[in-house]
Amino acid sequence: MLGQMMHRPLSIIEILRFSAETHPKGEIVSVRTEGDIHRYTYPDAYKRVGQLAHALKKLGIKAGDRVATLAWNGYRHFELYYAIAGVGAVCHTINPRLSAEQMIYITQHAQDCIMCVDLTFVPLIEALADKFPADMRFILMTDRAHMPESPIEFLCYEELVANEPTDFDWVELPEDTAAGLCYTSGTTGNPKGALYSHRSTVLHALMVVVTLAKMLNEGARVLPVVPLFHVNAWGLPYSAPLTGSSLIFPGAALDGASLFELMAREKVTSAWGVPTVWLGLQGEIAKRGQNPEGFSSVIVGGSAAPRSMIESFEKCGIDVCHAWGMTEMSPIGTSGLLSSHHLETLSHDAQIDLKSCQGRRAFGVDLKIVDEAGKPLPHDGEAIGELYVRGNTIVSGYFENEEASQAAMDAEGWFGTGDVASIDKEGFLLIQDRAKDLIKSGGEWISSIDLENIVMGHPDVANCAVIAVPHPKWDERPLLVIVPNGDKRVSKEEVDALLLKEVAKWQLPDAIEFIDALPMTATGKVSKLTLRQRFKDYKLPS
Amino acid sequence: MLGQMMHRPLSIIEILRFSAETHPKGEIVSVRTEGDIHRYTYPDAYKRVGQLAHALKKLGIKAGDRVATLAWNGYRHFELYYAIAGVGAVCHTINPRLSAEQMIYITQHAQDCIMCVDLTFVPLIEALADKFPADMRFILMTDRAHMPESPIEFLCYEELVANEPTDFDWVELPEDTAAGLCYTSGTTGNPKGALYSHRSTVLHALMVVVTLAKMLNEGARVLPVVPLFHVNAWGLPYSAPLTGSSLIFPGAALDGASLFELMAREKVTSAWGVPTVWLGLQGEIAKRGQNPEGFSSVIVGGSAAPRSMIESFEKCGIDVCHAWGMTEMSPIGTSGLLSSHHLETLSHDAQIDLKSCQGRRAFGVDLKIVDEAGKPLPHDGEAIGELYVRGNTIVSGYFENEEASQAAMDAEGWFGTGDVASIDKEGFLLIQDRAKDLIKSGGEWISSIDLENIVMGHPDVANCAVIAVPHPKWDERPLLVIVPNGDKRVSKEEVDALLLKEVAKWQLPDAIEFIDALPMTATGKVSKLTLRQRFKDYKLPS
Repeated sequence: MLGQMMHRPLSIIEILRFSAETHPKGEIVSVRTEGDIHRYTYPDAYKRVGQLAHALKKLGIKAGDRVATLAWNGYRHFELYYAIAGVGAVCHTINPRLSAEQMIYITQHAQDCIMCVDLTFVPLIEALADKFPADMRFILMTDRAHMPESPIEFLCYEELVANEPTDFDWVELPEDTAAGLCYTSGTTGNPKGALYSHRSTVLHALMVVVTLAKMLNEGARVLPVVPLFHVNAWGLPYSAPLTGSSLIFPGAALDGASLFELMAREKVTSAWGVPTVWLGLQGEIAKRGQNPEGFSSVIVGGSAAPRSMIESFEKCGIDVCHAWGMTEMSPIGTSGLLSSHHLETLSHDAQIDLKSCQGRRAFGVDLKIVDEAGKPLPHDGEAIGELYVRGNTIVSGYFENEEASQAAMDAEGWFGTGDVASIDKEGFLLIQDRAKDLIKSGGEWISSIDLENIVMGHPDVANCAVIAVPHPKWDERPLLVIVPNGDKRVSKEEVDALLLKEVAKWQLPDAIEFIDALPMTATGKVSKLTLRQRFKDYKLPS
Repeated sequence: MLGQMMHRPLSIIEILRFSAETHPKGEIVSVRTEGDIHRYTYPDAYKRVGQLAHALKKLGIKAGDRVATLAWNGYRHFELYYAIAGVGAVCHTINPRLSAEQMIYITQHAQDCIMCVDLTFVPLIEALADKFPADMRFILMTDRAHMPESPIEFLCYEELVANEPTDFDWVELPEDTAAGLCYTSGTTGNPKGALYSHRSTVLHALMVVVTLAKMLNEGARVLPVVPLFHVNAWGLPYSAPLTGSSLIFPGAALDGASLFELMAREKVTSAWGVPTVWLGLQGEIAKRGQNPEGFSSVIVGGSAAPRSMIESFEKCGIDVCHAWGMTEMSPIGTSGLLSSHHLETLSHDAQIDLKSCQGRRAFGVDLKIVDEAGKPLPHDGEAIGELYVRGNTIVSGYFENEEASQAAMDAEGWFGTGDVASIDKEGFLLIQDRAKDLIKSGGEWISSIDLENIVMGHPDVANCAVIAVPHPKWDERPLLVIVPNGDKRVSKEEVDALLLKEVAKWQLPDAIEFIDALPMTATGKVSKLTLRQRFKDYKLPS
């Protein structure tokens, strides 16, 4: 028997309409590529989104068309998120840190018909435009005064929007309609596209707010360092307006000093981003001997936050919450907020231990770990297996890529994350490693992440990575690659002593190499693939 | 184009499974009809729900069957909510305050096959059982030791549950599957059934948490005075577990002293219920000269909270949040939490004014006010019209009642609330009156609620109601009915002086009558229908 309730399609534009109506003082503050600060409210944004929707229709955008963006975190990018989805088209966010080959591949694969570009990327477009799909048009996200001389016939964003009516008659779309497209950075093979729907996006926004209401609430001022050009900035463009939280968009300047100044001036309450960004902010906090005023929480995701980073923030009175997810998960899967009973009963050290885990699943996200035969393993904190996920916010395959789709899903329709993990009795997920980054030594596994987290705690280490190198007897053995913090080079003995407090002797790296910088992927993660290639002929000491 | 995301059915049992997994210390504390206090955790509850699901299957319950409950707020009632919905059946909550005729009508109309009953209601069942559907079976919600002698062959709840396995293989149900049934108390005509679905219930839970996260969060201890036997206890059985809030179920004793003691002992952080209940609690707080420890918020709904009640709570440092909704709305439609800018910029008086409104819409609930021709009126705080609502959590009709269904919906599929209201520019809803309770005097409307709220502020008034009585010249004129607070009877002059501070002279009631108690409906609202009948031949002074 069916219920007798209305069935209204879950719809992205409804989030902004709600916010404009009920949170009229909610602000969006943006550091612009033009060099100044722009600020307006959710009602202002909603009107501009209406104008932009009219402009997109005039440009001939039809339901299902892909409209690409290549832009920093700012209000125009935010407007594109809503207007493109609102007219039934697909907002394809492109990571400007992708290689030229990858960018050409994904624009061709997605068959983007328009690309909306920040001023920063004009040279990039001029270099690549003729490799992009034929007939692609380009919108430059600025006003007439800032339009550059260029061989490309850029349309001017502000001119397109000006004079359009602010009311737009949003068509009701089936809730499974595609709304967003984001390609994984793809450390191997071609990038693969996650095609989000209105339903998945709205449910993700609701579930993120339910999980992280402590940071996402009316009056909060939220800084997404995590980019709009990748994984929907962890859904903040949706979850913040839903709660009336204000959004502070930092634009392109993500160094510690710029972030600190923006945060202090705008009284940011929580900041969200990958660990590498926080190293810079922590340096600035140390230099100034104070926090940005009102700053109380940092949400870390993208890569595991080293324990030393968590401790360092907590020492300054800043609460650290680990979040874990993937492009294929919209992206948030788990979050690391502790419960009141943890805070009441656990020692400080035990609390930091828990915070170093990836946290507990969000409502609507199922986790399972399985052995090599695909058999589910217990959630006992001991068993370690490959992590699979399931839920409305998780892809059922990749955009026009049957082969990758089939490889990603198991027989019951769960998505394979490629991570190896354990889950404890309270549901805390601990990612041990990427399956392909584990070091297989004499039939046993060594977690590169475990070793890295410990070594990161050494004051003379700025950054580090552990990779497998071939070994004639043990198959693989760990090599530790360190970026020194200053001139001093930590000794093998010192590293071993530090590691032996927490790991077994056979897990110690066989050698240390020092380099100036770690190779990074387009999403700010250490590229272990590049490192492995660089050290593939490395001779370990015998 | 469709997105490529998994499509998992929204499902009620998933809420409790989530809570059991990620909030294992979340508690359910219940004052039992057996006389003692029962406490357990969400994991315990989830296991018992599994056992109960097995028991229901053994009793032959099939998908779509209606299983009725007639019970106070307690853990077994909570278990029934989840187990009945979990096996694909429909949990039909019955209000024990309904008249015998109404109760017989709805059990026959719903064709309930089982009724689950608290000890309190054994005499009621014995009196009515032969008027209920033939073959109906009765489960008494207690253990063997408390089973009474009775001509009815009651099954024993604890015996049914005992020895069943705690694991139940929950079948995946389409998300539009019916899950709950609640009849409106129906001040006119027969009760009408709202048939909730899994989808509507889960979305309601999510949207309530997003709206009221301030009171619903991990570590909160929530007291639903609002009954499980009506309007899903405002969705608290779903929204509390979703956030890890603990639930404190008060059982049958809702007097001020009992509530105060329970709240103090269990460190309740927020209490939810209708205004009449809070009068008792406020009396107890005044008598003791202190609040229950840790008590910080009261959520008032069901009827408008008089301004004096809001002020009185706020004077004690207890935050008051008005919520508004209907059985047909799952039930929450709006909530009255103020924004930070209200708290920063408005005077205390202006804040209380705003808190006296019904608040702003929850995400997913649309409001419109229309004139008599059905034309939408502006949300300007001035225009007053009939209130219509739309959203996933709102009925599209009534259960097996085509005539009532058609009468309730407008041509565009919005549900008519029967309320007359204004909505201001910030989205604050102000219910002026039930359409049928408005007093039509000389072509102008007088709001009975406005007058009542003012008169309630007089110290010699315990309760009051304003109703229309026929008038030869003006068509209708207001009569004020007062329940005195103590022996003193407030004079007409005094009442007029109080009212004239806020209303026009022509809106003053023509007369005052004193009575011992106001007639109440089964849901704790003043029955103006009964009052009107009682005073239908009343002669106003000329």
